[in-house]
Amino acid sequence: MQHDFRFDADRSHGGREIIGLPVEPGLVQALIASRQNISPKRLVEPGPDASQLGAVFEAAAAAPDHGLLCPWRLVLVPEHRRADLAEVFALALLDRDTGASLEQIEAAREKAHRAPCLLAAIARLGPAEPPVPVLERMVSFGAAIQNMLLCAHGMGFGGGLTSGQAMQSPRMRTLLALRDGEEAVCFINLGTVSKRKMPRLRPEAAVFVSSL
Amino acid sequence: MQHDFRFDADRSHGGREIIGLPVEPGLVQALIASRQNISPKRLVEPGPDASQLGAVFEAAAAAPDHGLLCPWRLVLVPEHRRADLAEVFALALLDRDTGASLEQIEAAREKAHRAPCLLAAIARLGPAEPPVPVLERMVSFGAAIQNMLLCAHGMGFGGGLTSGQAMQSPRMRTLLALRDGEEAVCFINLGTVSKRKMPRLRPEAAVFVSSL
Repeated sequence: MQHDFRFDADRSHGGREIIGLPVEPGLVQALIASRQNISPKRLVEPGPDASQLGAVFEAAAAAPDHGLLCPWRLVLVPEHRRADLAEVFALALLDRDTGASLEQIEAAREKAHRAPCLLAAIARLGPAEPPVPVLERMVSFGAAIQNMLLCAHGMGFGGGLTSGQAMQSPRMRTLLALRDGEEAVCFINLGTVSKRKMPRLRPEAAVFVSSL
Repeated sequence: MQHDFRFDADRSHGGREIIGLPVEPGLVQALIASRQNISPKRLVEPGPDASQLGAVFEAAAAAPDHGLLCPWRLVLVPEHRRADLAEVFALALLDRDTGASLEQIEAAREKAHRAPCLLAAIARLGPAEPPVPVLERMVSFGAAIQNMLLCAHGMGFGGGLTSGQAMQSPRMRTLLALRDGEEAVCFINLGTVSKRKMPRLRPEAAVFVSSL
């Protein structure tokens, strides 16, 4: 997927143009700052349609990836396979805690049926050529996920990342057909936001920035 | 840093509003797709000023971080400390290869003097409460880096990630005052793009997406 683009880097005037669309100063910051994590419980129909999901995947593909490794892959869990995922959530809980209550098992199962669009995000950390370090591959992976969340946000959808101990379960590995070196890291949930919460407090730059 | 925002999720009309700024359909996709990795050799003055850098840091702080761990930190390498970094690059090369040529040593040294704005990006992977898995922390870290790159791109700057074997050198750990559990993963280079290359081919979605 190659993109023709035109980028006017002249900062002497207020507006800038990316692919012929006007970008107001501050807009990208606002886009990034206004994205929130939306709990899957608050993500309802409609989810992205096929074309919108294609745009989300294209955004993922635009992540930095200096080794051209694409050190991640995505597995869509469509409606008709949610019951299989529910089974994995329930049995993985029982594997960890044979004394889990029926309510707990039902709650685990229910997690598979929330957001209209559900994608498993898998890191590919096995041997690779060139031998890009695992931490750098994870930076690519995190960047791809953020591109997807921002793309969905820009289209008016909400998104949220979910994870939990079931991610490491052998049952999850089997369901997602994970190969050696692959790790299921989280699920990406996308849909229409039914209810927004107050924006969360973000860390001040002073907490994470210093200077030599 | 809390953000008041207003997001009109009504998809019945073409435009949408984030903090009162118009977002044309396709703009966010275009923003993401048009970002390129720019080699530090092609990043020249001016770099972001203090206020623009503040916006870049604010974008980093808006990354997903479910444990509120902020599992990363940034160290700015200002102009007057570039020589110290150059020394680390040169000596780390000699540590790895005592037979390095003078040209190679000079080339290693020169890497510290390229982009007008240079930030070391450090992952914080030690014990933490809550005990968020390392791979999830790395997703947060990668997301924060992508937010920074996109924010800089939206302001008309170019950015590029650089790394190499010197990142793991004890000399680098000393320079950046890394603590236990911290890893220097890459440098973030920001500046004005002197010359753009052709957009790079991106992987097709079929390469990294499947469905259950």
